Amino acid sequence: MIDLRSDTVTRPTEAMRRAMTMAEVGDDVYGEDPTVVALEERVAGLLGHEAGLFCATGSLANVLGVAQLVGAGQELLCDEKAHVVRAELGAHAALSGVTTRTWATGDGRIDPARVLALAEVEAGPYLVRTGAIAVEDTHNLAGGVVQPYQRLVELSRGARRLEVGLHLDGARLWNAHVASGVALAEIGQLFETVNVCFSKGLGAPVGSVLVGPTERIAAARVLRKRLGGGWRQAGILAAAAMYALEHHVDRLADDHAAAREFARAVEERASDSVDPAAVETNIVILDAGPRGAAGLVEAAATEGVALSALGSGLVRAITHLDVTRYEARQAGDVVGTLLAGRR
Amino acid sequence: MIDLRSDTVTRPTEAMRRAMTMAEVGDDVYGEDPTVVALEERVAGLLGHEAGLFCATGSLANVLGVAQLVGAGQELLCDEKAHVVRAELGAHAALSGVTTRTWATGDGRIDPARVLALAEVEAGPYLVRTGAIAVEDTHNLAGGVVQPYQRLVELSRGARRLEVGLHLDGARLWNAHVASGVALAEIGQLFETVNVCFSKGLGAPVGSVLVGPTERIAAARVLRKRLGGGWRQAGILAAAAMYALEHHVDRLADDHAAAREFARAVEERASDSVDPAAVETNIVILDAGPRGAAGLVEAAATEGVALSALGSGLVRAITHLDVTRYEARQAGDVVGTLLAGRR
Amino acid sequence: MIDLRSDTVTRPTEAMRRAMTMAEVGDDVYGEDPTVVALEERVAGLLGHEAGLFCATGSLANVLGVAQLVGAGQELLCDEKAHVVRAELGAHAALSGVTTRTWATGDGRIDPARVLALAEVEAGPYLVRTGAIAVEDTHNLAGGVVQPYQRLVELSRGARRLEVGLHLDGARLWNAHVASGVALAEIGQLFETVNVCFSKGLGAPVGSVLVGPTERIAAARVLRKRLGGGWRQAGILAAAAMYALEHHVDRLADDHAAAREFARAVEERASDSVDPAAVETNIVILDAGPRGAAGLVEAAATEGVALSALGSGLVRAITHLDVTRYEARQAGDVVGTLLAGRR
Amino acid sequence: MIDLRSDTVTRPTEAMRRAMTMAEVGDDVYGEDPTVVALEERVAGLLGHEAGLFCATGSLANVLGVAQLVGAGQELLCDEKAHVVRAELGAHAALSGVTTRTWATGDGRIDPARVLALAEVEAGPYLVRTGAIAVEDTHNLAGGVVQPYQRLVELSRGARRLEVGLHLDGARLWNAHVASGVALAEIGQLFETVNVCFSKGLGAPVGSVLVGPTERIAAARVLRKRLGGGWRQAGILAAAAMYALEHHVDRLADDHAAAREFARAVEERASDSVDPAAVETNIVILDAGPRGAAGLVEAAATEGVALSALGSGLVRAITHLDVTRYEARQAGDVVGTLLAGRR
Repeated sequence: MIDLRSDTVTRPTEAMRRAMTMAEVGDDVYGEDPTVVALEERVAGLLGHEAGLFCATGSLANVLGVAQLVGAGQELLCDEKAHVVRAELGAHAALSGVTTRTWATGDGRIDPARVLALAEVEAGPYLVRTGAIAVEDTHNLAGGVVQPYQRLVELSRGARRLEVGLHLDGARLWNAHVASGVALAEIGQLFETVNVCFSKGLGAPVGSVLVGPTERIAAARVLRKRLGGGWRQAGILAAAAMYALEHHVDRLADDHAAAREFARAVEERASDSVDPAAVETNIVILDAGPRGAAGLVEAAATEGVALSALGSGLVRAITHLDVTRYEARQAGDVVGTLLAGRR
Repeated sequence: MIDLRSDTVTRPTEAMRRAMTMAEVGDDVYGEDPTVVALEERVAGLLGHEAGLFCATGSLANVLGVAQLVGAGQELLCDEKAHVVRAELGAHAALSGVTTRTWATGDGRIDPARVLALAEVEAGPYLVRTGAIAVEDTHNLAGGVVQPYQRLVELSRGARRLEVGLHLDGARLWNAHVASGVALAEIGQLFETVNVCFSKGLGAPVGSVLVGPTERIAAARVLRKRLGGGWRQAGILAAAAMYALEHHVDRLADDHAAAREFARAVEERASDSVDPAAVETNIVILDAGPRGAAGLVEAAATEGVALSALGSGLVRAITHLDVTRYEARQAGDVVGTLLAGRR
Repeated sequence: MIDLRSDTVTRPTEAMRRAMTMAEVGDDVYGEDPTVVALEERVAGLLGHEAGLFCATGSLANVLGVAQLVGAGQELLCDEKAHVVRAELGAHAALSGVTTRTWATGDGRIDPARVLALAEVEAGPYLVRTGAIAVEDTHNLAGGVVQPYQRLVELSRGARRLEVGLHLDGARLWNAHVASGVALAEIGQLFETVNVCFSKGLGAPVGSVLVGPTERIAAARVLRKRLGGGWRQAGILAAAAMYALEHHVDRLADDHAAAREFARAVEERASDSVDPAAVETNIVILDAGPRGAAGLVEAAATEGVALSALGSGLVRAITHLDVTRYEARQAGDVVGTLLAGRR
Repeated sequence: MIDLRSDTVTRPTEAMRRAMTMAEVGDDVYGEDPTVVALEERVAGLLGHEAGLFCATGSLANVLGVAQLVGAGQELLCDEKAHVVRAELGAHAALSGVTTRTWATGDGRIDPARVLALAEVEAGPYLVRTGAIAVEDTHNLAGGVVQPYQRLVELSRGARRLEVGLHLDGARLWNAHVASGVALAEIGQLFETVNVCFSKGLGAPVGSVLVGPTERIAAARVLRKRLGGGWRQAGILAAAAMYALEHHVDRLADDHAAAREFARAVEERASDSVDPAAVETNIVILDAGPRGAAGLVEAAATEGVALSALGSGLVRAITHLDVTRYEARQAGDVVGTLLAGRR
């Protein structure tokens, strides 16, 4: 099976496993795990931030980050397909009492003027105050698009002027960095809190890091414990993340090339289903055609290609560490043929 | 001072006060207040529903109604200027754990296709399930527009097909009914839960009624107590609401006429500020011009007219029981003159 | 029916209704209801506090008061039969995220040393911090006992030393004041926030006032709106509360005498069921005997006396404005005879 | 440094690390990690339950378990020193809206009659319903005492009769099992949900398993994702837990012996500080004497022994995998000497 469901399915490599085996560890609840501490410092530095916090998932890092910027009864603004509002099971509302307003996603690239116009900062005692805006880069459900750097700069300036917080859901920020060539710190510094994940394209088994100002990260650390995320000898996992940071960032370019290859293979057989030029990183969104999303996913699985349905009409393919360019091409042939209706 | 800030500022009339004085009362926590029971039954009947619950505010009725349809971690869909998401201090998230996605308000009239497309009903274990859609009729921050009946019918059919709940924030449903001529029950039956208010155009001092199916209203009654809303001899207030229902519904047409009068007076002097043809009920939204909203509100107050700022550029005027058509005209002259810059 | 279920069942007198009819009112959400403002100031003054907030129920006032002292994830200490933890449907946890630890109620009188020993103030990042202690005076489920003033003084000193907040659920503080002769302000000043109710022994239809420091009351006012408690022309109800304050406080002594009369009548026929000497205010707790609580309540109802069951073995009778001393005596005869098994 | 602060500080052994290196893994969010699945099945079987869920911490497993038994606004009963109410940062209230009443801990052993008498099951629409009772075995803050099996049987029968849920916080259930000789399944079957931890005495780096009925565990799995606990290739950690299960359970007897050795060494020099006969498992609670808890902890640290302060007057020592019996004896000599005041 060529598994293109998600880049979360990657398994640790032998070398990464060796790094885990050798990791020096301690009790992270007491702040005594040296590998965790090193990872947190390293990631904070890379993103131009003061401090970091190693978390079991990106969802946890997002919840902790947003909670530092938005109080209960205040609002987070994000787009209608954002992971924070669609794919975290309502955590921000259910756990933190954060309410949300959304803008139409469009092509997934943020429109600073539209977003800033939505913010309510003179709320007084009757209206909901906008606590923060969340940006997703790359944008998963919009097809892995990269947020244009100048727009982020403009958004950041506007948000600071309005005294509205800015959180970056950078689950796949590594992909955005590799695709755009913009330095991680350049992007990171535009936001007050940033989540980056190691268990997606980077191929580590488990883990995300939230970065931000020292005092916010300290508060997030306490809140992490309340949420049941205060683990112990997490250095085992941090070692894998550190390894991924050193060896698996640049190679994301291969995933991007494989994704385009996949898209081109589909397009050759079913040109209405996908636009390879729209593929910026490792995610490809396909129009499932008359078969419907569930139908295409099922048919592809029979042919040895695993995809994900996005609602009823769209299907997503994601390339990653455990899929070669050759396999991506093969998978594209299979899916394109299915879409062309020849089978 | 001609007070056009809100139709919530009305004071009970002498006749309404007499009705309160005569009210038979009992302990409503035990369900023993006959006037409350009569009001609840009457309103439920008017709206084509099984049962009703008398609440201190429309915000409370909205929270209780939405909580019957949307579980913690599920989502409510509404427009980005809806009272439920803008003006209830995040209650749905903070108290019920309800997350929200919003569509752009546009002219305030609902677009069933766009709204239904936003709903997520095949959420599975990873995505947020859409529990309900909320509609506001008339739509306050969109200028008191009336929801076109056929659109509501279409939305209702779609929501039932998708098994998504439908809540009506009918704080000013009385105005929609009077302006459109559509029977209350015709509108009410399209929704699973409906909130109507007595302390706005109807002129009662305090109170709203939530209507819905018997078992949902029973659950809302228990939840009302948790929220600190389980009052005792509320029949005093229910008597005023009952009086308003009998004597103050039809006369809303006067408020609508007064609002148009106000708008026309403004337009005569400052034609760019307002379009009288857009005034459907008792709410007028004005472009505040170069003075800004706060500036216009302040200038008008100096001239004896009280208005509300809506953000930085818009100003709202609302007509009601305590403002005559003549006063509305006068106020329009004052505001129009200010907008024309002659003072 | 002689209704001894609760002192919440009282109906407003003719004079109180007249006071409501005459009340000057305004929009309380804007802080413009003069009768509400006067009541809030008056009650704050009586209790030795800076500011007050008129609320629909004592439960609401308790939730707002406790939320000023205890953050989400912090704890409130109270006794295991306290109204705040037993009879408010979990509001403090469900709405404010407040966790609770309880001490055994005993005779209902607070033991400052035991309570203070329970407090955790050096919580660090791993333990739950005690935000506040709640006291109930008189204590409803413990039989209307009055908290001994010196114990409250001792508790207050201890709580300040530990920097732990102190909230008084004074739903029936008027009864404690009349029974003990201690001035309201003497008691009130020992606490940071105090709730007093007008719809119980004082006989007003609806309403409670929360008092406390100005800035906490301002915050509570905003939170009241989130909870759906921001009503409009509430002066109608405030007028009744003000009337009750002027005319119905001293007469609580009659209710206390009636309660003792009731208890003595029971004791004459069934001496094991009740100890009249334990009756300090308007509440009498009876041992229901072999019939059980539900059985006794049912049997008494057949004979024209309404009581409340407290769990399976105890029954509660409460005297109030709408029950004369003679009726209390009669009711005691009926209940005593039932308990003696002669009928 | 001989580290007796907690049994959470243990580091994985070489053999355990090898098990992690060899672990077959997959994406646990999709339920595809074979090592995680094997661990969950194994632990469920051991405890006599249908299904299991691998979690990052015992706090997370407790939150997920309790949430299956107690709804928002309902109550959990536990003792006043229980980990769930003292050491989980108010999670049950803040995240699940669960309110709590507590009984006095006493010697830490549960008193079924007292506990069952506290439960409220005929709550009706006005009182808080008891959803569940939580038991801690062994009881950490009560000094590692083992819950007497017959009392648990009696509690379980009573809870079923009342239809009240029963949750076991078995973070150190392995110790209770080894000390008492009662089979794990015998204890486990008395409860509806059970949490057991691998990162304490068993020496695994990270992880706990919640067991219970299949449908409750399925619901807990979804909730785990909302709480940010839905990790990916967690099999790396599950492999360590599985190793611990196979190799580190029986050896807990050594920790128990080491704890008694420590206690005896202290008692020889300072007989008032501790009673070795009270040491049932791996936890020793000492009276810190005139130095106070913080003082003793500091003095011991200077001498190379790390302890934990429990409030102001008590100190805790815990033996574990990384402390030999000889070191425990040494540490006892040091601490006893300090307590005897000879240094």
